[in-house]
Amino acid sequence: MIQSILIANRGEIAVRVVRACKEMGIRSVMVYSEADKDSLAVRMADDAVCIGPAPASESYLKPKNLISAAVLKRCDAIHPGVGFLSESPGFAKAVADAGLIWIGPPAATIGMLGDKVEAKRSAIEAGVPVIPGSDGPITDVADARKQAKKMGYPVIVKAASGGGGKGMRIVRSEDDLEGAIKIASNEAEKAFSDGTVYMEKYLENPRHVEVQILADSYGNVVHLGERDCSVQFKHQKLVEESPSTAVDEKTRAKMGKDTVSLFKSLDYVGAGTIEFLLYEGQHYFMEVNARVQVEHPVTELVTGIDIIREQIKVCGGEKLSFSQDDINVSGYAVECRINARTPGRITEYLPPGGYGVRIDSFLYPGYMVSPFYDSLVAKVLTYGRDRNEGLDRMNRVLDELVLEGITTNCEEQKRIINHPVFRSGAFGTGFLEQIEEEA
Amino acid sequence: MIQSILIANRGEIAVRVVRACKEMGIRSVMVYSEADKDSLAVRMADDAVCIGPAPASESYLKPKNLISAAVLKRCDAIHPGVGFLSESPGFAKAVADAGLIWIGPPAATIGMLGDKVEAKRSAIEAGVPVIPGSDGPITDVADARKQAKKMGYPVIVKAASGGGGKGMRIVRSEDDLEGAIKIASNEAEKAFSDGTVYMEKYLENPRHVEVQILADSYGNVVHLGERDCSVQFKHQKLVEESPSTAVDEKTRAKMGKDTVSLFKSLDYVGAGTIEFLLYEGQHYFMEVNARVQVEHPVTELVTGIDIIREQIKVCGGEKLSFSQDDINVSGYAVECRINARTPGRITEYLPPGGYGVRIDSFLYPGYMVSPFYDSLVAKVLTYGRDRNEGLDRMNRVLDELVLEGITTNCEEQKRIINHPVFRSGAFGTGFLEQIEEEA
Repeated sequence: MIQSILIANRGEIAVRVVRACKEMGIRSVMVYSEADKDSLAVRMADDAVCIGPAPASESYLKPKNLISAAVLKRCDAIHPGVGFLSESPGFAKAVADAGLIWIGPPAATIGMLGDKVEAKRSAIEAGVPVIPGSDGPITDVADARKQAKKMGYPVIVKAASGGGGKGMRIVRSEDDLEGAIKIASNEAEKAFSDGTVYMEKYLENPRHVEVQILADSYGNVVHLGERDCSVQFKHQKLVEESPSTAVDEKTRAKMGKDTVSLFKSLDYVGAGTIEFLLYEGQHYFMEVNARVQVEHPVTELVTGIDIIREQIKVCGGEKLSFSQDDINVSGYAVECRINARTPGRITEYLPPGGYGVRIDSFLYPGYMVSPFYDSLVAKVLTYGRDRNEGLDRMNRVLDELVLEGITTNCEEQKRIINHPVFRSGAFGTGFLEQIEEEA
Repeated sequence: MIQSILIANRGEIAVRVVRACKEMGIRSVMVYSEADKDSLAVRMADDAVCIGPAPASESYLKPKNLISAAVLKRCDAIHPGVGFLSESPGFAKAVADAGLIWIGPPAATIGMLGDKVEAKRSAIEAGVPVIPGSDGPITDVADARKQAKKMGYPVIVKAASGGGGKGMRIVRSEDDLEGAIKIASNEAEKAFSDGTVYMEKYLENPRHVEVQILADSYGNVVHLGERDCSVQFKHQKLVEESPSTAVDEKTRAKMGKDTVSLFKSLDYVGAGTIEFLLYEGQHYFMEVNARVQVEHPVTELVTGIDIIREQIKVCGGEKLSFSQDDINVSGYAVECRINARTPGRITEYLPPGGYGVRIDSFLYPGYMVSPFYDSLVAKVLTYGRDRNEGLDRMNRVLDELVLEGITTNCEEQKRIINHPVFRSGAFGTGFLEQIEEEA
């Protein structure tokens, strides 16, 4: 059993992990940058260590500082949260080498899944449908032309080590292919020190649907249903919901089966997600996130499973305490990410309450929202018996939220939640761009 | 369909009903006493009317003021909340006579259920087990002696129109019976202008277990499982949970069946509860609460049914949208009532958040907690897959609650939640008095 966890992160995910530790009777130790010394997670945790100044490159991204803090405070495990070093195979390995428990899958698995070409190969081997594309990196433009012609335009060129839309180009005709490959490769080289790119058929306005799993070290993998994250702006998720309006029972069963097959074929422990694109009724493997995701609470609300609690338990060596048959997705849940548009001091903060409401935030009156980090300041979730009840509740909750001192995207979220296209359930990842054009 | 509701109450239940109205697209109109002009419910509602000064007898208990406010603001319905006039047959009748929808059962039903002797008679007729006792008011002491001997001491003498422990005496031997009847009758006369008393077998340290129902005007009654409210201090509930550790599947099925039988035999619409005492595996009818209860959120968390929303719908003439087979009690929920020990201004308030947490409160930083009303300032609820998870979460949540400027019973609630006897699940309504004696 894990006795004490160092939380190598900040913001709302740090608060999330501290809460889980408190509920499990585990001692929690926070790290913090100088800019984060007054953070809620630091106030809530049992202990805390300063690991350097802002920005993150001087603190949260320094493996040695984090591991030293864990050793100094006699922790026996490190929880990486999301972002920062949570998908760094080097950090995962260093944690294990220091004799600490890494709350995540093994370093080698993270490394393999972080390489998109490798990850796609493992999906194919596990029988998971993938988007038609180059069977590896693009090495020859003439060959790429042939392949693109075969799968049909539009195609998309992507960085093998990429993420966040960098090193990515949509190509709509053969004339543009060579230039796009060059630009994408240059961007990838600059952003990830790896210019390798590959090519796929481009799915126009697909759905982004992902499946959550939990896996223990005894070979058990259980999936917890899907989340629909199609409401995105520049590849950043803004609204996530479960179940998806685009997934019927047959597709749901297939996606679940495929997800479990892939994870069973990997050396995997902890929480994980496969992201799929859903297009014309077919799901295509996109990538694996080898960590918890920001939107994991959506699944917690419809399954009643505390994902962080279970993640800590299985990474501590326990068996999963439930099987696939115990998982019941009931009702509907939705999350709206509240992002700060500007840094500043919170002058008033009163989170909404009542039935079917969950707030994950690190705000408090008087807190200074720092300019150094991610803009996410609160995750607002609602639950309902059905989608309309859940969304009507979200509308009430966003109205009720008192948050002064900074500007946020709260009004934009209300527009999305009440938009007739979103309410209809028939939309894709291009939905927000369509709204922008309308406005 | 109801378009606009006047909320004839205050505090957290008023906020609860305003929230439901907002989610349902119903216009909400608050009433308020002069002392409540800055209340959260008034701030949140679409409109508000002052109905007089504190204390309640000059405002919230004045039927004419409430009905005038509803007519003035063109409301088509009145929600009475809990307490105040929520179980007044006179007020229910006046509301109906004014052509307004009463969100509750018909006045005659409220009147009958408010008379404990009548209520017990209707339970017997519906085949619901009742505590052995006098088959009506005590009119003759010699006859009472005979009956008490037959059912066995201890017995309890109770006011027919009573509540809150007034006009109530436990009698442990025949010598004390006559005196107890006189004292109880005098107390009842003073408190309720009705000196009628009756007698029952006294159950020593029983469980208080109640069953929630929803009924529509088409004869459909659905029960939503039980709540255990055994943790009480001087007959005031402090901690409520569902499911009860004292109820096995067989008893649960019987209690549910009995509850539905009784409500089907009544002219009943809306939300209601039967309170039972559970003693040596047998449940005994205690009383019906012909309104929602403070602890209704416990049931909402384990069933996923929004009781206030459904109550408003059925009282507006809609059919219940679910049947008994659709109701699934899953997981565990617990509520701790946070009561103010002193009035005062809230200097800091930050409600806890995260997974499995629900807060129903009317507090905000700067709010003045008034000396005129009920001491309940917040209902803190947690949900878990099982009882231990839910209680460990409650412990975390009570730790996390920031509430400064008044003193509360928060620390006492933590002691209860973590007490080995409470954790064991084997306790009765005498549990808190036992703790008091220990301390």
